[in-house]
Amino acid sequence: MNVVVMRKGRLEMVQAPIPTPGPGEVLVKVLATGICGSDLHCLSHTAELLSSTKAATGVDLFDIDDDVVMGHELCAEVVAYGPDTRGAIPVGTRVASPGILIRDRLILLGYAGTDMPGGYAEYMLLNEALMIPVPDNVPDEIAALTEPLAVGLHAVNRGNLGPDDVPLVIGCGPIGLAIIAILKMRGVGPIVAADFSPSRRAMATELGADLVVDPRVTSPYEAWRSVAETTDPAKAARPNLLFPSDVRPSVVFECVGVPGIIQQILDGAAACTKIVVAGVCMQKDEFYPTHAMLKEYDFVFSIAFTGEEYAEVLGHLASGALQVAPLITDRIGLAGIPEAFERLADPERDAKIVVLPSAV
Amino acid sequence: MNVVVMRKGRLEMVQAPIPTPGPGEVLVKVLATGICGSDLHCLSHTAELLSSTKAATGVDLFDIDDDVVMGHELCAEVVAYGPDTRGAIPVGTRVASPGILIRDRLILLGYAGTDMPGGYAEYMLLNEALMIPVPDNVPDEIAALTEPLAVGLHAVNRGNLGPDDVPLVIGCGPIGLAIIAILKMRGVGPIVAADFSPSRRAMATELGADLVVDPRVTSPYEAWRSVAETTDPAKAARPNLLFPSDVRPSVVFECVGVPGIIQQILDGAAACTKIVVAGVCMQKDEFYPTHAMLKEYDFVFSIAFTGEEYAEVLGHLASGALQVAPLITDRIGLAGIPEAFERLADPERDAKIVVLPSAV
Repeated sequence: MNVVVMRKGRLEMVQAPIPTPGPGEVLVKVLATGICGSDLHCLSHTAELLSSTKAATGVDLFDIDDDVVMGHELCAEVVAYGPDTRGAIPVGTRVASPGILIRDRLILLGYAGTDMPGGYAEYMLLNEALMIPVPDNVPDEIAALTEPLAVGLHAVNRGNLGPDDVPLVIGCGPIGLAIIAILKMRGVGPIVAADFSPSRRAMATELGADLVVDPRVTSPYEAWRSVAETTDPAKAARPNLLFPSDVRPSVVFECVGVPGIIQQILDGAAACTKIVVAGVCMQKDEFYPTHAMLKEYDFVFSIAFTGEEYAEVLGHLASGALQVAPLITDRIGLAGIPEAFERLADPERDAKIVVLPSAV
Repeated sequence: MNVVVMRKGRLEMVQAPIPTPGPGEVLVKVLATGICGSDLHCLSHTAELLSSTKAATGVDLFDIDDDVVMGHELCAEVVAYGPDTRGAIPVGTRVASPGILIRDRLILLGYAGTDMPGGYAEYMLLNEALMIPVPDNVPDEIAALTEPLAVGLHAVNRGNLGPDDVPLVIGCGPIGLAIIAILKMRGVGPIVAADFSPSRRAMATELGADLVVDPRVTSPYEAWRSVAETTDPAKAARPNLLFPSDVRPSVVFECVGVPGIIQQILDGAAACTKIVVAGVCMQKDEFYPTHAMLKEYDFVFSIAFTGEEYAEVLGHLASGALQVAPLITDRIGLAGIPEAFERLADPERDAKIVVLPSAV
């Protein structure tokens, strides 16, 4: 089959055997795979990704000399069941699934080799227990967005917003946009957002942000304050020794992931802000703990999602409660992946590019 | 009156006029003042304290060339009421109070000059509205501990522990010990604690810690795990993509406040740990955001307390629910303050030293 591998820091299309499902696993044909920011990080910061994962979890994600088949935002079609399966979902059915195989250890699909490929391939393996049928009214490419939307839903859940909280989304890449769509669906607001890119600001508006600013022109924190001020103590943020409680509670979603952004939020945001960190910063970062302390911040780090959150998102896509078509800015075949990675480095042009492997 | 000032980076006893209460203020005779770790920071990191406060709050706490009278852990006796007061608490009554004056701006007592002195003085001013009578059965020196205990109570409240959470207190200085006492009072546990100092470990045990380790000998995180492991899903921490949920929820109280301690906790503690940062780190700090993200940490920064929390602590001291006499390791007069600051740099000898100004 055709498969795109990361090999010695480059992406290239090669041939590989169709993988063989192990116990509890299912061979599926990949219908659509989103290109994730994590994939870009994986290619550009391979060594840092491996060392961070090893340091934080003790696990060697892969060997730096291994071929890796990325792609973990998946919509696929059931082809054949492996041993020890129930086969409850008929062959030919479209399914979505979190990108996990449960072998002797947990395998993160998209970070393993051609024997357990991610979605940058014509065929892959899924765990039967995690597959969910995709409702007929959800197109392949939208079903593939279940994964990044579940990341957004998880970040919003981790933020645990109260009814009077006013969110500020810093960075309107795919995860920032997913968070905006989820916040809008939940009825939280007004939603304030900031991005340097005009096209991303337009997408933020389209997905539900109420006030979107260019941080070169308008301070996101001043914009936030303009809609969050209140004289109603019942709606106001909790009091703090040093700051008057003259604004509604502040939740900032950090969706940029570069060194310095946390300190910038500390400097700009209101006292008692909860910062939900959803941006992936691969480098060491610095900040002044006393600033966080004097303003009594919370930092809430968020990654991935639960199975329940993944299923919930697919349900919202089917019901129409979540409308995310504007997120998709292009569709490509497998052969287009290397060029797509280069294009995604420029935030002006694209948000989510979906790979349709059957287009090769 | 006698007063100890910080002047050009040194402490010295000088003479100053007895201050005059403004509207809503009360002249009080200082009965007891605790020496706080913040006072040590204020003397040893004056410039950093001023720049951090300015950066985080916009306020100039004081001018670096000003004389400053520290001391904000207070028990005092009412001497005379200023204008626009009600005088509800009789002259001669013992009172405790948060160290705040409300003038055209908020004055933090202990960080101002001889006209608004902190408790390192024979007399000072308090705000009438914040004074609380000290019950007869609470000695002066214990009433002065209301303040650091309220800091501990606030940190525990900020931690928002559930019934199955297992706390780990890193650093058993006065705030770590206050947190242990509050956790014990609340019935949370088992309480695990760590400190390099044998005397502080003994105090931690006396105040209610169940398992206290020397981090040179035993990893605090391994010690924590030894009491927090569970096979009961109802008691276990929330699941995370990368980590099995085989322990009870983890709340680490960071009561050290030196650069690097946050990353050390990130490296050692369980997935989904909530780190309540109560240690005051005056320098810039570094950490790897990806480690915090892969393990889905929360950082909760805590400072000071609310008026309700302050009053609650005084009530617990009166009822006997909080037993904190072991915290006090010495009593000195005003003249002893400079030497006490030197002694407190050595954690082996002291925890809380209380100044009794009438002993001069």
